[in-house]
Order: sequence, then structure tokens, then C-alpha cells
Amino acid sequence: MRSSEKTELACSVEIICVGNELLIGKTLNTNAQWLADQVTRFGGKVTRITEISDDVREIASVVGEALKRKVDFVITSGGLGPTFDDKTLRGISRATGKKLKLNPEALRLVRDRYKEMSLPKRLRLTKPRVKMAILPEGAGPIPNPVGTAPGVLVESGAAKLISLPGVPKELKAIFERSVAEMIRRKSGDRVFYESSMSVRGVVESALSPLIDRVMQRNRQVYVKSHPKGGEGRGGALIELHFSLIEKSREEARERVIKAIIDMVRMLGKRR
Amino acid sequence: MRSSEKTELACSVEIICVGNELLIGKTLNTNAQWLADQVTRFGGKVTRITEISDDVREIASVVGEALKRKVDFVITSGGLGPTFDDKTLRGISRATGKKLKLNPEALRLVRDRYKEMSLPKRLRLTKPRVKMAILPEGAGPIPNPVGTAPGVLVESGAAKLISLPGVPKELKAIFERSVAEMIRRKSGDRVFYESSMSVRGVVESALSPLIDRVMQRNRQVYVKSHPKGGEGRGGALIELHFSLIEKSREEARERVIKAIIDMVRMLGKRR
Repeated sequence: MRSSEKTELACSVEIICVGNELLIGKTLNTNAQWLADQVTRFGGKVTRITEISDDVREIASVVGEALKRKVDFVITSGGLGPTFDDKTLRGISRATGKKLKLNPEALRLVRDRYKEMSLPKRLRLTKPRVKMAILPEGAGPIPNPVGTAPGVLVESGAAKLISLPGVPKELKAIFERSVAEMIRRKSGDRVFYESSMSVRGVVESALSPLIDRVMQRNRQVYVKSHPKGGEGRGGALIELHFSLIEKSREEARERVIKAIIDMVRMLGKRR
Repeated sequence: MRSSEKTELACSVEIICVGNELLIGKTLNTNAQWLADQVTRFGGKVTRITEISDDVREIASVVGEALKRKVDFVITSGGLGPTFDDKTLRGISRATGKKLKLNPEALRLVRDRYKEMSLPKRLRLTKPRVKMAILPEGAGPIPNPVGTAPGVLVESGAAKLISLPGVPKELKAIFERSVAEMIRRKSGDRVFYESSMSVRGVVESALSPLIDRVMQRNRQVYVKSHPKGGEGRGGALIELHFSLIEKSREEARERVIKAIIDMVRMLGKRR
């Protein structure tokens, strides 16, 4: 039991989203969904997503909890910019015990971005901008192809802490260019495979024992029902979602298809 | 310091969303945003949002952590239905030590719903349906005006644990009918007030010291900058968001307006 779980979690990932705007319901957290989808595609397993406020103590405590759970990656979004309430790196510094200091490589990246913006020289490296190059000791900046604040990689024990800006365009660009490959390598090229079928005219509670049986007969394939509401003429529509993580796409596909066939047969017998 | 924080957190709320579909990036978590917006409107303060998988141990551990943080409310969404992977109440039972047992009041609510659907009698109370009436000891069902699984209220110490179904329509109906009022009462009728202004032609890093000063001069008003991207002809567009929680709407409005005027004056001097 323990060992099979271990194999499945070849690459575990926690996502932490920082920003008061999430907690007051001002902003829909599309970053978390995008990151979860990407991590899953590259064979990683997202085990938890947490949204917290722009508060150093809170960030430090959530990052510390994730590290205690021995995940392979902690990916944060938000709180990397030049303003007062960009506190993610202070939180990470506190959680890991790595002091904040000016990182020459990051400073070069920030300086180059503002040079490209062709501002007069005296406006280029103001104090709030230099702040974006102050990183936890031993950290490496991750280039930001579309914005000014670089991403940040901090290693703590066996875990990699990756901090990305909250602006979706920048978060995506940094992830695609540099982070996706780290996940893929750690997961050992596993693939996530999913497929859905729709069922009409069977209520969810009647599907429940069939789902149980399909999952017992198709180990590791995860089946979940999602009621799509709207009781139409033929009854409610329910989506059945089948998924698993496997070493090869072909094997994954084959096992999911077998599970779907099992389900279709059982539904057929029922009628 | 401690005491002012205490006042501000007159009604603290954690939101826990249960569902593998969130962790694989299949579903955008609109429930969390909707709940956070509603809680904020009714004067509550959301301190953390967590998304976890359909796993009893994981649910129990996240609920237990929230209770240790002494929040007033824990609101869960998802995992209340009739199927195998609806495990929220088992998790809450484990976290609170309250055993699961058949709740006669909940059973009556479930039975009445299936009666309304006018199914043949033998199809009404199948085992998976009865499961929806098995609640932690001492819990109270919360009527679901638009679906079959009732919401559930469990009291643990001073905290109220409220479990809502994951189907957005049902979650919203139960919240609006029964939960909103509990939050409003606990928060002592506080109101959240917010207002935004847009600034063009000033980069975010240059706004940072102005935001600091406005927040120092207008205690409790929280100011946050949100870059809206797209460097137009007049420079990037940045939204400045002002908010606070106050006892009266008039007082809140007055204080936010004063902060906005301060900001406008400082921006004027700068040019």
C-alpha cells in the first residue's frame, strides 16, 4: 500500500497562491487551474492548492507546512513584484532560513528589462525595482521572457521552491520556458491520461455502485461522476471522468478504454 | 496590535474545496471565488482557501488544521453526494471525533426530495441515497432547496463547520438561504467596502512608495496595485484597489474616499 502510493507520487507538487484579491473574491484563481493542468500533463501530481493573503507570517507558515509534507515541488504564484505587498520571497526566506540578499544575476536580468524599455538612465534602477533582485541566499533567478520580475528557484532539502509572478501572462511564460521541463524530468516522463463519457437517464446515486465495481476491476484508474444538472426529458446528464497516470501513453489509453468498456457493459445489463 | 487584529477578525472563515477535478486542473474553482465574495460582503474575513483531493485522511487533516487555527467558520464544498468518492463527512467525522450515524432529520429531507421526483417507491431510498443522511453525531442538516444532498452543520468547540455540495447551483442556494445570515450575525453587521481607480503612465514600481504613504496615512484602508498589462501609448494601465471592513457603510465609504483623494494628490505632485 505505502509503496504503491510512493510510486504514484513520483513527482508531488503543492501550489500556493498569494494575494488578498483571491480571499475577498475579487479575482478568480485561473492561475491555480492553469498550473494544475500543466503539472498534471507533465506527469506530476498536485496534492494541494492553498490561497493565502499578502502576509509574511502566513506565507512562511504555509510554505513551511508544505516542506514538512516532503513534496518535490512547491510552486507559488503572486507577490513577486516591486510593491510593498509583494512579500512572497520574505515568506520563503523565513520558512527556509535563507537570508534575503541582492542577487547579482537577478539584478542583471531586471536591469536588462528596464534598458529594453528605454527609460532615462536615472529612472531605471529605483529602489522598488532593485527589490525584485533581492532573493533568498543560494536562490537562482528564472528568466521572465515577458515581464520585469524574474521567477525564483530556491532549493530546500530535497524540495524545489519555485516562485512565479501573479500576472497570468508572465506566470505562463516562465513555466513553459523553464519549469515544465523540471516537472517532466522528475516525474520520469509519466503521462496523465483522461477520457470522459456522458450518461443520461441514470441518477448519480444509482451509478455509485457501478463506479465502485469498475474501480475495483481496473486498479489505478480513477472514475468520478460529475452531475451536469438540468433534468432533461431523458433524465439528468452525468459526466463520468476516467483518468490515470502511467509510464506510457499507449498503456494508459488501453487501461482507460478497458474501464470505459466495463462501465458501458454494466450500464447495458442494468437496463 | 494583537487586540486590533482580533477586532478585525470578528468573523474569520476558512474555505476548503474537495475534489480531484480541482487538482488535475479539469475544473476552474468558481465556488471558492463565489464563497469568498459572499463571506466578504457579509462582513466575514476569509483567511485561507485550500483545495484537496477526495481522500478521507487529507480532508481530516486539513479540517483539523483549520480548527487548530481557531477560525469561526470552516466552509467546505464538494464531496457530499451519494457516490464512493463523496468523503467530506467521513473526513469531518475523523477530524472532530464525532461518529457518523443516520440522522433522522436528514433522512426525512432526502426522502422528501426523492418523493418530489416521483420515482417508484422501491427506487427512492437506495443505499447510496441513505448515505446522504449519514452525518457526524450532533450535526444538523441544512435544507437544499434545489438538490438532493442537504448541507451539513457541525459544531466543534467554538467553530462552526459548514459542508456544502460542490454543484454550484446547490452550493449557492444553501448559502443564500441559511449560511449568509450566520456570517452576518457573527461579524456583527460589519461591511466590506471597496473602490478602484485606474492609473496610466506610471510604472508599478514607481507607485509603490506612494501606496506605502497612503496606507500609513489611512490606517486600515488596504491599497493594492494590479497591473493590467498591455503597455499602451500612454504606458501600462494599473488598477489601484482600496478596501476596508468597517462598522458602517458610511464610515467605510468616507475613509476609502479620503484615501483615494490622498493618492490623487500625490500622483498630481509627482507629475
